Amino acid sequence: MKLGDVGELEILERLRKRFASCSEDVIVGIGDDAAALDIQGHTLLISTDTMTEGIHFDLTLVTPYQVGFKLVSSNVSDIFAMGGRPKWSLLSMTLPPDTEKSFLDSFLEGISAGIKRYGLDLVGGDITGSRNSFTVSLTISGMAEKRVIRRSGASVGDRVYLSGPVGEASCGLELLKRLGRSVNLERGEELQLSLKWESVGPLLMRFLLPEACDVSEYSEYITSMIDISDGLFLDLTRLCRESSVGVRLYEVRLPVTEALGEVSAFLGKAPYGFITSGGEDYQQLFTSREPLSMFIEIGEITDRGLYIVRRDGSEEEIRPEGYQHFVSQ
Amino acid sequence: MKLGDVGELEILERLRKRFASCSEDVIVGIGDDAAALDIQGHTLLISTDTMTEGIHFDLTLVTPYQVGFKLVSSNVSDIFAMGGRPKWSLLSMTLPPDTEKSFLDSFLEGISAGIKRYGLDLVGGDITGSRNSFTVSLTISGMAEKRVIRRSGASVGDRVYLSGPVGEASCGLELLKRLGRSVNLERGEELQLSLKWESVGPLLMRFLLPEACDVSEYSEYITSMIDISDGLFLDLTRLCRESSVGVRLYEVRLPVTEALGEVSAFLGKAPYGFITSGGEDYQQLFTSREPLSMFIEIGEITDRGLYIVRRDGSEEEIRPEGYQHFVSQ
Repeated sequence: MKLGDVGELEILERLRKRFASCSEDVIVGIGDDAAALDIQGHTLLISTDTMTEGIHFDLTLVTPYQVGFKLVSSNVSDIFAMGGRPKWSLLSMTLPPDTEKSFLDSFLEGISAGIKRYGLDLVGGDITGSRNSFTVSLTISGMAEKRVIRRSGASVGDRVYLSGPVGEASCGLELLKRLGRSVNLERGEELQLSLKWESVGPLLMRFLLPEACDVSEYSEYITSMIDISDGLFLDLTRLCRESSVGVRLYEVRLPVTEALGEVSAFLGKAPYGFITSGGEDYQQLFTSREPLSMFIEIGEITDRGLYIVRRDGSEEEIRPEGYQHFVSQ
Repeated sequence: MKLGDVGELEILERLRKRFASCSEDVIVGIGDDAAALDIQGHTLLISTDTMTEGIHFDLTLVTPYQVGFKLVSSNVSDIFAMGGRPKWSLLSMTLPPDTEKSFLDSFLEGISAGIKRYGLDLVGGDITGSRNSFTVSLTISGMAEKRVIRRSGASVGDRVYLSGPVGEASCGLELLKRLGRSVNLERGEELQLSLKWESVGPLLMRFLLPEACDVSEYSEYITSMIDISDGLFLDLTRLCRESSVGVRLYEVRLPVTEALGEVSAFLGKAPYGFITSGGEDYQQLFTSREPLSMFIEIGEITDRGLYIVRRDGSEEEIRPEGYQHFVSQ
């Protein structure tokens, strides 16, 4: 049997079972955004993310700088999702020997910009040759601020929040595919399109140079959290499964930004698909018992079943659509 | 300019310069076996290692189990090289979708055996698809025991030690290449050769299922340390460069194990090349002011120049031969 027939979630489930036995100093092990480890009463958070050419990025659509910056943001987002403060990073690079030095320099410039953006230190790593593919891993560790926020803390009656709008990143990717080229946003490049650049620019930014979202200021009110890397429905399903709860969302509450509306229309697609199944927005999805008006309340936690109330009042089951490795999309 | 024209050491030097600015809590940053970080008075060590198919291993010569076990040992070795105790690990896997489930299971069994061997916990990681190559990264963190041992602590007059014999791993690889097949040592497989299995078995073990070497019991006597992953001469050159010292080794003191002698002869090669330039032994190379009779004393630290006194009394300059990525071997 091949991995393509098994799927990422099942592989992860096997890993969790195989490596379940953990020491007392492991507060959170496999299966959350980051691991949490007890160091003499202080909680260390640690997480790793890998991006590989041809799967996570297509170098005809993104610049090496953007790959580097996004790698940092996606990792930082995992630490933020646990209510932590990222501090230290290690970078592993696997590069073909015919990689141009200028390519590596541009990638490292993106890493460097990310490191500065979040106030991190790069303290180590590894660089190795490869036969033909460019693969990069970043490990980020940091300290939990007040407490560790897990995926498993949601309970019935909690309100469900988004830290910001989702769907723009995947809509940006669709637009890039249509354009068939990369856009050098980090050098201030602007495109001449029939769309307003004020809409297109920020939307492309969400895909090409996303920023991780830190809601730790409100962590005392947050009962559970996950960052949206693979799509709202898929990541929400993960949160609900870990918390053993259900959820009811309301389509009418899902924000459609002006940019998303305009670019979706340009692409001839409905925003709904981008919002519910598009990945890489790096917003935080979290639950709270409190009304938190600075965030977007999109539904509530129920005791079972995952549903969304559509605009016409009908209730549809939420299927975890989003990006899973080893599953035909 | 391509990376193949630059070389790993130069790339690392650039990385060090680019990411030099570090916070106060970074005790050791880029450029040692592991980073050392201050967590409220406790020292966390963290290191990452990547292995990729076709570069670090050839699946016609090694089993997936062996890849997994060695990945753990090589990472643990980095923590030992800083005088630390490894505790937690994160595993990143990049796998082609046509990977057989049985392949993944065997690899994870090797990881699992390594995790148990060193008393670690696997607390997280990442699994992603790839187009065509199998790449794995392991990050290990742990705590410094008494103090952090760096590459840079050697001074003139120190004695140079090996924790055990080197060269067997690379000799084992040569033998495997000659055989053109893998050997399932983890299942107790033995080969029928014209050589004694009592020589061949342990030698192959050093390459296929190496164990990391912990000398932390003696850390109060150790002034500097590096683990030998890329070859004695290359790793010794690194240690001397970091310590701004020279060294004089004595060929006559370099141990030639019976197994290495026999198998080298069988291969028609001199043991000297394996001992001085063969990688992946995961012994520790360290310096001390004290006589430490339980280890192998191979030379002394001088104020400049790297030399080896050959058996005939002539002094030869040590050239850092060993494995460097992006350099034609």
